[in-house]
Amino acid sequence: DRIGVPEAILAEGKGPSDLVAIALSFLEASRAVLITRVSPDQLAALREAPLPAGAELRVEARAKAAVISKGWPPEPSGGKVGVLSAGTADIPVAEEARVTAEMMGCKTAVEYDVGVAGIHRLFPSLEKMHDMDALVVAAGREGTLPAVVAGLMEAPVVGLPVSTGYGAGGGGEAALLSMLQSCSVMVVVNIDAGFVAGAFAAKIAKMAAKCRNM
Amino acid sequence: DRIGVPEAILAEGKGPSDLVAIALSFLEASRAVLITRVSPDQLAALREAPLPAGAELRVEARAKAAVISKGWPPEPSGGKVGVLSAGTADIPVAEEARVTAEMMGCKTAVEYDVGVAGIHRLFPSLEKMHDMDALVVAAGREGTLPAVVAGLMEAPVVGLPVSTGYGAGGGGEAALLSMLQSCSVMVVVNIDAGFVAGAFAAKIAKMAAKCRNM
Amino acid sequence: DRIGVPEAILAEGKGPSDLVAIALSFLEASRAVLITRVSPDQLAALREAPLPAGAELRVEARAKAAVISKGWPPEPSGGKVGVLSAGTADIPVAEEARVTAEMMGCKTAVEYDVGVAGIHRLFPSLEKMHDMDALVVAAGREGTLPAVVAGLMEAPVVGLPVSTGYGAGGGGEAALLSMLQSCSVMVVVNIDAGFVAGAFAAKIAKMAAKCRNM
Amino acid sequence: DRIGVPEAILAEGKGPSDLVAIALSFLEASRAVLITRVSPDQLAALREAPLPAGAELRVEARAKAAVISKGWPPEPSGGKVGVLSAGTADIPVAEEARVTAEMMGCKTAVEYDVGVAGIHRLFPSLEKMHDMDALVVAAGREGTLPAVVAGLMEAPVVGLPVSTGYGAGGGGEAALLSMLQSCSVMVVVNIDAGFVAGAFAAKIAKMAAKCRNM
Amino acid sequence: DRIGVPEAILAEGKGPSDLVAIALSFLEASRAVLITRVSPDQLAALREAPLPAGAELRVEARAKAAVISKGWPPEPSGGKVGVLSAGTADIPVAEEARVTAEMMGCKTAVEYDVGVAGIHRLFPSLEKMHDMDALVVAAGREGTLPAVVAGLMEAPVVGLPVSTGYGAGGGGEAALLSMLQSCSVMVVVNIDAGFVAGAFAAKIAKMAAKCRNM
Amino acid sequence: DRIGVPEAILAEGKGPSDLVAIALSFLEASRAVLITRVSPDQLAALREAPLPAGAELRVEARAKAAVISKGWPPEPSGGKVGVLSAGTADIPVAEEARVTAEMMGCKTAVEYDVGVAGIHRLFPSLEKMHDMDALVVAAGREGTLPAVVAGLMEAPVVGLPVSTGYGAGGGGEAALLSMLQSCSVMVVVNIDAGFVAGAFAAKIAKMAAKCRNM
Amino acid sequence: DRIGVPEAILAEGKGPSDLVAIALSFLEASRAVLITRVSPDQLAALREAPLPAGAELRVEARAKAAVISKGWPPEPSGGKVGVLSAGTADIPVAEEARVTAEMMGCKTAVEYDVGVAGIHRLFPSLEKMHDMDALVVAAGREGTLPAVVAGLMEAPVVGLPVSTGYGAGGGGEAALLSMLQSCSVMVVVNIDAGFVAGAFAAKIAKMAAKCRNM
Amino acid sequence: DRIGVPEAILAEGKGPSDLVAIALSFLEASRAVLITRVSPDQLAALREAPLPAGAELRVEARAKAAVISKGWPPEPSGGKVGVLSAGTADIPVAEEARVTAEMMGCKTAVEYDVGVAGIHRLFPSLEKMHDMDALVVAAGREGTLPAVVAGLMEAPVVGLPVSTGYGAGGGGEAALLSMLQSCSVMVVVNIDAGFVAGAFAAKIAKMAAKCRNM
Ligand SMILES: Nc1ncnc2c1ncn2[C@@H]1O[C@H](COP(=O)(O)O)[C@@H](O)[C@H]1O
Ligand SMILES: Nc1ncnc2c1ncn2[C@@H]1O[C@H](COP(=O)(O)O)[C@@H](O)[C@H]1O
Ligand SMILES: Nc1ncnc2c1ncn2[C@@H]1O[C@H](COP(=O)(O)O)[C@@H](O)[C@H]1O
Ligand SMILES: Nc1ncnc2c1ncn2[C@@H]1O[C@H](COP(=O)(O)O)[C@@H](O)[C@H]1O
Ligand SMILES: [Mg+2]
Ligand SMILES: [Mg+2]
Ligand SMILES: [Mg+2]
Ligand SMILES: [Mg+2]
Ligand SMILES: [Mg+2]
Ligand SMILES: [Mg+2]
Ligand SMILES: [Mg+2]
Ligand SMILES: [Mg+2]
Repeated sequence: DRIGVPEAILAEGKGPSDLVAIALSFLEASRAVLITRVSPDQLAALREAPLPAGAELRVEARAKAAVISKGWPPEPSGGKVGVLSAGTADIPVAEEARVTAEMMGCKTAVEYDVGVAGIHRLFPSLEKMHDMDALVVAAGREGTLPAVVAGLMEAPVVGLPVSTGYGAGGGGEAALLSMLQSCSVMVVVNIDAGFVAGAFAAKIAKMAAKCRNM
Repeated sequence: DRIGVPEAILAEGKGPSDLVAIALSFLEASRAVLITRVSPDQLAALREAPLPAGAELRVEARAKAAVISKGWPPEPSGGKVGVLSAGTADIPVAEEARVTAEMMGCKTAVEYDVGVAGIHRLFPSLEKMHDMDALVVAAGREGTLPAVVAGLMEAPVVGLPVSTGYGAGGGGEAALLSMLQSCSVMVVVNIDAGFVAGAFAAKIAKMAAKCRNM
Repeated sequence: DRIGVPEAILAEGKGPSDLVAIALSFLEASRAVLITRVSPDQLAALREAPLPAGAELRVEARAKAAVISKGWPPEPSGGKVGVLSAGTADIPVAEEARVTAEMMGCKTAVEYDVGVAGIHRLFPSLEKMHDMDALVVAAGREGTLPAVVAGLMEAPVVGLPVSTGYGAGGGGEAALLSMLQSCSVMVVVNIDAGFVAGAFAAKIAKMAAKCRNM
Repeated sequence: DRIGVPEAILAEGKGPSDLVAIALSFLEASRAVLITRVSPDQLAALREAPLPAGAELRVEARAKAAVISKGWPPEPSGGKVGVLSAGTADIPVAEEARVTAEMMGCKTAVEYDVGVAGIHRLFPSLEKMHDMDALVVAAGREGTLPAVVAGLMEAPVVGLPVSTGYGAGGGGEAALLSMLQSCSVMVVVNIDAGFVAGAFAAKIAKMAAKCRNM
Repeated sequence: DRIGVPEAILAEGKGPSDLVAIALSFLEASRAVLITRVSPDQLAALREAPLPAGAELRVEARAKAAVISKGWPPEPSGGKVGVLSAGTADIPVAEEARVTAEMMGCKTAVEYDVGVAGIHRLFPSLEKMHDMDALVVAAGREGTLPAVVAGLMEAPVVGLPVSTGYGAGGGGEAALLSMLQSCSVMVVVNIDAGFVAGAFAAKIAKMAAKCRNM
Repeated sequence: DRIGVPEAILAEGKGPSDLVAIALSFLEASRAVLITRVSPDQLAALREAPLPAGAELRVEARAKAAVISKGWPPEPSGGKVGVLSAGTADIPVAEEARVTAEMMGCKTAVEYDVGVAGIHRLFPSLEKMHDMDALVVAAGREGTLPAVVAGLMEAPVVGLPVSTGYGAGGGGEAALLSMLQSCSVMVVVNIDAGFVAGAFAAKIAKMAAKCRNM
Repeated sequence: DRIGVPEAILAEGKGPSDLVAIALSFLEASRAVLITRVSPDQLAALREAPLPAGAELRVEARAKAAVISKGWPPEPSGGKVGVLSAGTADIPVAEEARVTAEMMGCKTAVEYDVGVAGIHRLFPSLEKMHDMDALVVAAGREGTLPAVVAGLMEAPVVGLPVSTGYGAGGGGEAALLSMLQSCSVMVVVNIDAGFVAGAFAAKIAKMAAKCRNM
Repeated sequence: DRIGVPEAILAEGKGPSDLVAIALSFLEASRAVLITRVSPDQLAALREAPLPAGAELRVEARAKAAVISKGWPPEPSGGKVGVLSAGTADIPVAEEARVTAEMMGCKTAVEYDVGVAGIHRLFPSLEKMHDMDALVVAAGREGTLPAVVAGLMEAPVVGLPVSTGYGAGGGGEAALLSMLQSCSVMVVVNIDAGFVAGAFAAKIAKMAAKCRNM
């Protein structure tokens, strides 16, 4: 893997057999490969693929992802990553972040659908996040949740805009722009980029764990 | 005036003497005229203008507006309009809304700069808004405040996006889009359109007052 | 429900069984739930769902919506909401607004396809709207109708842009921008956001009714 | 001139002496040249320029234009062009259209500031346009007026969007898009392109005059 | 019909039976109705529809349009409209313009696919257009052809941008913008708006014919 | 300060005396305040302002920023933040990030103008960054540098797009989009948002330092 | 062919039999025709088409293209064109460039998927390109590769942005803008325009070959 | 210099003394430096700067550029670059391209203002370009000229869009998009990027010259 980040393949737009071939070629050099945005057809092809000895296919259905790895779970890094989502529609993208962080050896805690029901329902969720090293917060439509979380928590927050609206700005643009304009101190990844958000949060968390062990 | 809305002149881009001429011509048919986005030069010309008998110039400095009216205050309508702003930079646009509502005979209450300091400072401000018939909420940058207010208050909320950011979406577009995408039930006017927001809120407030008096 | 607004689920993009599950969970806490942008598949699943005792599924075909509620019609609020559409293509979105207002206990009156045939055909339609507390006006393409109505009627007008054009601005952007730029005093919701328009109009109407009863 | 259209120079961005040089060189081959968007500095230079024998400078102040021509008025073509504007802010651009049409030998009639005050004030203005061969209709902000005129008049209507708004779409984009999306049969030129609108209308009017004389 | 323009229905997005119903209702008041952007399913429904006595369905396959009319051809107006297209991909939209002009009683001449092969192949096509009263010029991609034609021909040119490119600006935006920016005197309609272009050109042509007959 | 982040005032658009007043009011509750995008006029006013006892004004000229603080340097946090810029034009924004990180008690190392001269000149700069806890990488135009750094370094990289180009995408949009699309694992802040980038990097660095001390 | 460039047909959006007809008509005047973006259905029709004597259909599957030519390979021009791609997803567009260059009689060398794995894997690929006369470099997402190659190689580089991302800028806009903003000296074609990139590179290469033979 | 391209400094936005310092530092390693978009103030500072022995400042007024070089003219490369502009407003940007090509040792020929007056005036200009190795064609507004030239000439054409319009697409976007969408085989650089266009054309021309000398 590149500087601690797992190999990942964006399945979208690749033929099933091409996808299998690419995945297998990655496994020659890596212990594990993550396949994101995988379709049912592609999944079927992966299930039939001749995996190398000791390798195993894990399907992460809610994340629309698959992992092929030699040995699971990965070696624990000691890092802890929290993943929150504002609505139910944001869950697949949030899950992509979670799977990525776990592949990087992080423990994860998730709290989904906490953004719509009003701020009172948010507090218990945030409490469960108190010992996390980094937080990924996924939100679509107006994308407010990450800024609210960043205003309340000490851990670094990665805002993850999601393309789950309609009308003007509904492809995730409103969420992206409002996160970029936020008065809270937080950072942003691209719309629907669960992989990048999860990997960045895990990078921070692993660094924190390494420092704790020094 | 048109269906209860005051005559208004957008001063921007008009020569000082043209502006005076237009304002005076409006006063032939109306009791009052509102002049918005007025520059120091234009203001000087208005101060020297020969007003009709009984008419008076009021300068609303923070609103960058002026009012020429025969008789002030206007006849009370019984309506009550609250105006909030998220930051200090949003105040001129919020003030344009306030002046407009007052010209329409509404009582106003204002709470400015309540959005940045965290939600705890918002609650006392909202308390002061509890008997308002309608609320105008001005916000720039990510424009979150109107949705938060709409999620907590029963009065109808008019979101007023303000062009006070920089970078991507900083001309008010992020605020506009995030208000349009909001999960709260609220409506929106154009970026910096304090006049429209104030007039619409006052329309609702006057209707409520009329109903109370039936 | 949140401050008088009905619970609503955006069906688009949700699996049929997920949708049923979410709807049923809402019904644990609420008397009624609105499901918008529902597909034939999703409708079939809703028809087979085991509803709680006393609950009933209403299909609003023209609105592409469904309502599950315990007891229909809802308790009357005394509010009156008028809904107009410019063309026939705008009707589904206008209907979403009407259903929402009715769920909130408002009486509704509708006048559809009044915008294209010239202003003379508009007057009789407006006459039927004279005792409405608030108006929703849906329009696609150039989106002119709401401003015309707002210039003629005293009731507050909520402009509802619809994505029924083609070419530049045809996804509702021309309608949205022209409503935001309107010289009439009116407000706007997002493109195709019938639910928000209907709920906001009903909020105003219920407030007026409450004031009438004070 | 090119196929009956007058030579025209866009003054904006040119140095005063360069502008004079270009204008003079045009006058070697043409009877007249139109200079648009001219600044006070450029005008001063034009006033001091050594014009060819028989040539004269006309300043069209409201149009922000100047004409240098050998012999004025131009030979009458028999064509008649009407020019309307929605607001006062649209007048300079409308005037640019009028001057262009007059340079092309057309009679013109103008009606300005007819769009805001409601449709009743529009009818007398339209009556004055009844024998025009073509109409230019300038409008900023939401740009509705051309479509209204095109729906009521038989003469061809050229929509002329003007950059006189603010906020989203306020640089003339809302007007342009709403004219392109119009349900009326009409055509459009670029934002602030008074010259093109005037020249196109004059082209039609001259053709009609020629046909009348056949 | 409205001021001489035929009734037209945009079929896109309407259910086949709704479309039939709307078409039949139009025929109660009009001699003919044009149906644009019609799908095979909609066409099948139209073929089976119970037309009023004397009415006939004409399918204009290349135009993706249908006409239902009582009596064909329409009464000749004496107007002549030329229609050109730059490429083969622009033909359907150009044909929509041609059909519209013919419904308005105009004679038409068409020259398609004249824009790509170099300017030498254009001249013979333009020769055939020399007695036309107005020209519609359809072009996609960079949309150059209308400006070239307008620079060479005396007849008024309506530019018709077509959505037949790919990549940046390929949805017709490049063509639309380059027509709006053209140095030639010409006007523009919306992307793919063959109906508007054809109707506007026919309006001019009918006026010319009327003037010839005075 | 809010969760460890210094109070900051965006000076742009504020009157000099208003700015002084806001800055002084912040100092009642905070040890220090950062003033960004400060103009010469505003700076002059700040220099004359009656600071509270023990407070001192520091002007950070290259950052176009000022700091008023009671006691400097701030208490060291043990965190280490590296700041790189691709070109010389990016330095003011990079410096804003550096000042922010230093106000948060971090040690900083800077390497400016390392992006243009080719990758060979980058390696020595990166070597100097090897013990940093987090990196801010500022880049305008095509904004490539952050991705290159993120592909080579283990420390988390915050991409900071800068508005220093011209032409299409030159206001920082090309840099922002290319950072969002990067194949490297990195995060992004808004265009020119040096404050946010510096504060986020310092947050991570302080967490790392705290972990080292556990 | 036009100035040495092969005739090409964009198959997208054409009916299979129309496509065959257009291709055959091109073959009357040309030795060869290139068909790009061809679908399986269209390919089937081409396979069954009655080709002129001596003509042959070549299917270039990875390029999603077909070539019908009388005599293959084309006469060698002596030019040499290198084609590189950043990722695997960019290969079809890169292949379209390669096929075009080969049709123009150029020798080609390809190096695909060299952009993601880090700069060290790029050097051997560039070595293989050292005697090329011109280079086409295809890249999606952030589109960095062409600028890197242009900074290292003496041959002229044509940047070819590819629409293989997702989220903001993912339709090739980020790649296009970053290539336009590049600090390297390079040029750009439209998103996915493999044909133009290949033909331009071949034009240069043929000129170089011609000069070598002088 | 970098692979044969001259060092260049974008003067815009740099302080005069900073600019001098950067220019002098470049001259330590290079024989010459190009300074583009230089203001009068900056020019004054350059005139007073202590140049290294043998270096000389050349001011290229029409190009808004300056060159400091040790020995002028540069060693001839044998390459020949033609530069054309559509209008007079495009000349400064075209001149920037010319100066760059000359700094790279190329002979240049220029033909300006050839695009507006109709195609007949273009042919003599093209004749003068017949032995050029590469052409730069600058055009604003609709940006048609480069495609026309590329359709008529065998030499490779670099399209150079210029920001000299107004209204929609007038900042050079219409020109850029129409060049990207062109049916001719040509390439594009960013809006106003005369330096890149000139340097790329010179690169090709130098290669051709080198091949001639082999
Ligand atoms: N969901 C994802 N979002 C962003 N990047 C991804 C995703 N999945 C895989 N990638 C990255 O995309 C690149 C794959 O490019 P390609 O060669 O086109 O498959 C690799 O750098 C992956 O790490
Ligand atoms: N601040 C403002 N925002 C929006 N509309 C305004 C404002 N001030 C004046 N107006 C309206 O703008 C229109 C004036 O148009 P004009 O004739 O161009 O001055 C009138 O409809 C005014 O009511
Ligand atoms: N292809 C078309 N392009 C533009 N407008 C059209 C087209 N076909 C029909 N129309 C117009 O669209 C309007 C019909 O709107 P609707 O009521 O939604 O069917 C009428 O004004 C028609 O004249
Ligand atoms: N350069 C900057 N970039 C982004 N945010 C800033 C900057 N400077 C100050 N801020 C933040 O902007 C907000 C100030 O809002 P205001 O009340 O309008 O001054 C506060 O949240 C500051 O922390
Ligand atoms: Mg959200
Ligand atoms: Mg805000
Ligand atoms: Mg409409
Ligand atoms: Mg208007
Ligand atoms: Mg074309
Ligand atoms: Mg950069
Ligand atoms: Mg790439
Ligand atoms: Mg041009």
